[in-house]
Amino acid sequence: MAAVLPKAVRELTQELTSLPGVGAKTAQRLALHILRQQRVATNRLAEAIATLHDRVQTCSVCFSLADDAVCSICKDTSRNKTTLCIVEDALDIEAIERTNFYTGVYHVLGGLLSPIAGIGADQLTLKELISRAEKESISEVIIALEHSMEGEATTRHIMSYIKNLNIPVTRLARGLPTGGDIEFADALTLNAAFSGRTKV
Amino acid sequence: MAAVLPKAVRELTQELTSLPGVGAKTAQRLALHILRQQRVATNRLAEAIATLHDRVQTCSVCFSLADDAVCSICKDTSRNKTTLCIVEDALDIEAIERTNFYTGVYHVLGGLLSPIAGIGADQLTLKELISRAEKESISEVIIALEHSMEGEATTRHIMSYIKNLNIPVTRLARGLPTGGDIEFADALTLNAAFSGRTKV
Repeated sequence: MAAVLPKAVRELTQELTSLPGVGAKTAQRLALHILRQQRVATNRLAEAIATLHDRVQTCSVCFSLADDAVCSICKDTSRNKTTLCIVEDALDIEAIERTNFYTGVYHVLGGLLSPIAGIGADQLTLKELISRAEKESISEVIIALEHSMEGEATTRHIMSYIKNLNIPVTRLARGLPTGGDIEFADALTLNAAFSGRTKV
Repeated sequence: MAAVLPKAVRELTQELTSLPGVGAKTAQRLALHILRQQRVATNRLAEAIATLHDRVQTCSVCFSLADDAVCSICKDTSRNKTTLCIVEDALDIEAIERTNFYTGVYHVLGGLLSPIAGIGADQLTLKELISRAEKESISEVIIALEHSMEGEATTRHIMSYIKNLNIPVTRLARGLPTGGDIEFADALTLNAAFSGRTKV
């Protein structure tokens, strides 16, 4: 079969399929939608993508994404700099900030240790974390990593360094999510919820 | 809550949410993915979007999408120009071409009549269709529009013009899709399959 759609549409479709969760059919539909949009909307989208890398920096303190050399949270003098929350990426910070109760600062690891995915300690900001824990006067480290094999391995790795520094380290509680039906909870979550049960 | 993610990421997220089927969460995930891509991949995507409008034309014969003023199918001298298949858009042509058995040419309406969506006869290429049916020597018109309220209305509208031209008009058969379980067929499809039943 000869190509029916124009080359420009096929090329854009090809590029779009590299995005997560976008298959061939979805990519084609998106390409056609972009073609039917007003030119001004299409240009805004192209511009936002083209300038993304140049406009986004990595915070030199916490390694989150930032507009400038230091991110808005690290710059904020009202934040409690003695509490350090360790997260995997910038989206985790967004989720925690949305709750509006955490007033400390963050450290972004940039991933989790995973021998299968080939992610070792060198690819994460672990050295920088240890250096912060040593130099800054930190009174509590909160590990906010997911409860998975990779999360556990990364937590153990962090602990092996921090335990010598005499800083209290906590980890986010495991248990049933709010509104989560017990019927649908997996065995590991139920197990954790039972062992961590609290007095009424 | 202060904005956590950089402005460039938020702006791209905003643009991406205008795409069909892309919600706020998906847009954020896509934006982060684009940021983590190599610069060269990001530039290719931005370029493909930015140049789309300029590179794609509307075929002056059948009104499909084209690389040039006339699309590859209308240019193809081996196609049977006496059979005209009416479709809604270019993606329909792609689906039909994929089957490799249709050798005629097409006419793209650009939509279906829909009073609810505010799409009237003027927004479709109906005048151009009538003009083609009158001027070109066409021996059969095949209406390949979906079996929906809009599809029926558009078909009736087309018929009201073409019936005076003495050209045989057919419509794609209604019935059960291949492999489609009868258990899951809707009442209208089953009804059509029963009335259109064929001798074994």
